[in-house]
Amino acid sequence: MLEGDRRHLTHAISLGQRGLGRTWPNPAVGCVIVAGDRIIGRGWTQPGGRPHAETIALTQAGPAARGATAYVSLEPCAHHGRTPPCCDALIAAGVARVVVPMQDPDPRVAGEGLRRLRAAGIEVVIAHDMADTAREANAGFLMRQATGRPLVTLKLATSLDGRIATARGESRWITGPEARTAVHLMRAQSDALLIGAGTARADDPMLDVRIPGLGDASPLRVIADGSLSLPLTGRLARSIPSQPVWLMHRRDADRTRRKAWEGLGALTFACPTDDTGALIPAGLLDLLGENGVTRVLCEGGGRLAASLLRAGLVDRLVYFHAGLVMGAEALASIAALPDEPLPDMARWTLVRSTPIGPDVMSEWRI
Amino acid sequence: MLEGDRRHLTHAISLGQRGLGRTWPNPAVGCVIVAGDRIIGRGWTQPGGRPHAETIALTQAGPAARGATAYVSLEPCAHHGRTPPCCDALIAAGVARVVVPMQDPDPRVAGEGLRRLRAAGIEVVIAHDMADTAREANAGFLMRQATGRPLVTLKLATSLDGRIATARGESRWITGPEARTAVHLMRAQSDALLIGAGTARADDPMLDVRIPGLGDASPLRVIADGSLSLPLTGRLARSIPSQPVWLMHRRDADRTRRKAWEGLGALTFACPTDDTGALIPAGLLDLLGENGVTRVLCEGGGRLAASLLRAGLVDRLVYFHAGLVMGAEALASIAALPDEPLPDMARWTLVRSTPIGPDVMSEWRI
Repeated sequence: MLEGDRRHLTHAISLGQRGLGRTWPNPAVGCVIVAGDRIIGRGWTQPGGRPHAETIALTQAGPAARGATAYVSLEPCAHHGRTPPCCDALIAAGVARVVVPMQDPDPRVAGEGLRRLRAAGIEVVIAHDMADTAREANAGFLMRQATGRPLVTLKLATSLDGRIATARGESRWITGPEARTAVHLMRAQSDALLIGAGTARADDPMLDVRIPGLGDASPLRVIADGSLSLPLTGRLARSIPSQPVWLMHRRDADRTRRKAWEGLGALTFACPTDDTGALIPAGLLDLLGENGVTRVLCEGGGRLAASLLRAGLVDRLVYFHAGLVMGAEALASIAALPDEPLPDMARWTLVRSTPIGPDVMSEWRI
Repeated sequence: MLEGDRRHLTHAISLGQRGLGRTWPNPAVGCVIVAGDRIIGRGWTQPGGRPHAETIALTQAGPAARGATAYVSLEPCAHHGRTPPCCDALIAAGVARVVVPMQDPDPRVAGEGLRRLRAAGIEVVIAHDMADTAREANAGFLMRQATGRPLVTLKLATSLDGRIATARGESRWITGPEARTAVHLMRAQSDALLIGAGTARADDPMLDVRIPGLGDASPLRVIADGSLSLPLTGRLARSIPSQPVWLMHRRDADRTRRKAWEGLGALTFACPTDDTGALIPAGLLDLLGENGVTRVLCEGGGRLAASLLRAGLVDRLVYFHAGLVMGAEALASIAALPDEPLPDMARWTLVRSTPIGPDVMSEWRI
């Protein structure tokens, strides 16, 4: 890897992040084209998953791409999907070098993109030491490729003693505006938000992204509502035309209610259930994965959070702790979990913690 | 204030902190004596509250103190207690200047120390812009002077969802060794540790300071045990000869048990109680204040913590959050509190938050 390669590849990876939450089922890729020491093209996967990053960067670069180096945050695709293969576009543009941090594990690519570039006489560099950074940037896409289910982040905004609502049910607002803005950014970078029907009923939330300039980043809303009991008159139902709702229900849920939701524009999915009739979280996530979702942000409530945790299906945990204590009769952020011995309990690894406005945010990985 | 005054006074305040937890009922004062640009004496209040900081610093300085400047973290005392007044010692030593950040509110001093220094022809500088720092350093002493009760810090080590023990009662260890060491440092800087009888019974703790070199810093242990029900055979009872125990009990607690505890060397205090027979936290703290305690660290459990919080008697909150979730059936860190509307709940102000080993520590003030 030459001097500067690391910098340009970091740039490409970071450009790719701009598409997070809006490119699914495609990965959010970034591309930078450099001639000499001048950046002549930059692109990232556009909302809906196309055009691809390479197409945009090559269009910007124009004829200057001949002999240039292309930095791409993931192996360029080699298959005809809704767009022609990017490796062919790079070959046609006459780039001399392509630098990537990793192969695309998609079986339709899986090294074939790089092989075709090399076959066309293009120098291909795989920057293995940046693979971890790229893997992190593409974590949702890679999770779905590897397991069929999306990456799951569980977000909780609680008092210091871990409560998400007062005993009388108030939860607006526990955390300050800065934390709430951070949550809106997390939403914007998610393909789908997931909440339980109890929380949907109690909070009647919009689950949108209210950040100026990011209005079109409001993600799909997924409600785990086994019995389809959620009222058809709430804010979620009323806002379906501008922001989709998917309802995950039991096979035996009332057909009339299902038809009514579908009439409002919601998609409905019959989920596998356990002996007690509860939705099986792995089945729910598999359905989301089958339908292209790569990044899910779960925003509660306590029962859904506990069922995901119990099943080992939470990949990342983000806690916002506000400076108040509510006491033992307020609502727990996590419903009952199995009573394991303390040394056997899953331990989360701190990624970072930071004050955010009057609150403290901490991010954890399993 | 001259160039350098701020630096030397900061030094004096920071030296004073070395005595925290071991000088009660006296304040933990620091003193630096400077001749020209050379530090010729340094001292801090010694364990037990004497000798005072000034005495030690003056002894170190010897005859060189004549014409020097003395920096003291609190107004020098003006009254004959167990030691002669420090202002007289400074006058006798011939210092030319005395710099302090604030008056001593003790009615036996209250400006009289500074007045006598000035009357002896010594230049006295009050560095008002450092008063906040000094007040923070002397917060326990000042709280007792102002209100009669000690400063109360509530420390909690919990899971992310605010639990202090698993459903089966395990609490060793939720946090990592770094957090536990930080707690031992907090103990060393406290005059007294306070726990409820339930926690004393469940955990059978030593409540000592296990940091090499700080062995003699293990503070007084205070147990809120209304009925004196705590077994006489636990680690607390057995270790009384090396580390005192005070028992706060109801007036009608069993006399035989009280005599047995006293036989082991514990001090016992009859506390005021409410209609339900529960100890009144304000009464308990007043008793500690009357007996000289200026800084209390409450280490739980959830019921004692809730009773102190309900009474508005917690001045500082220190949460250690470990990277695990225990779920709603695990033991709450704070027992039930009144169900107030969310906007009326007491809000704590973040002082700092920091990763500590695998955990996150956050400090809050009311």
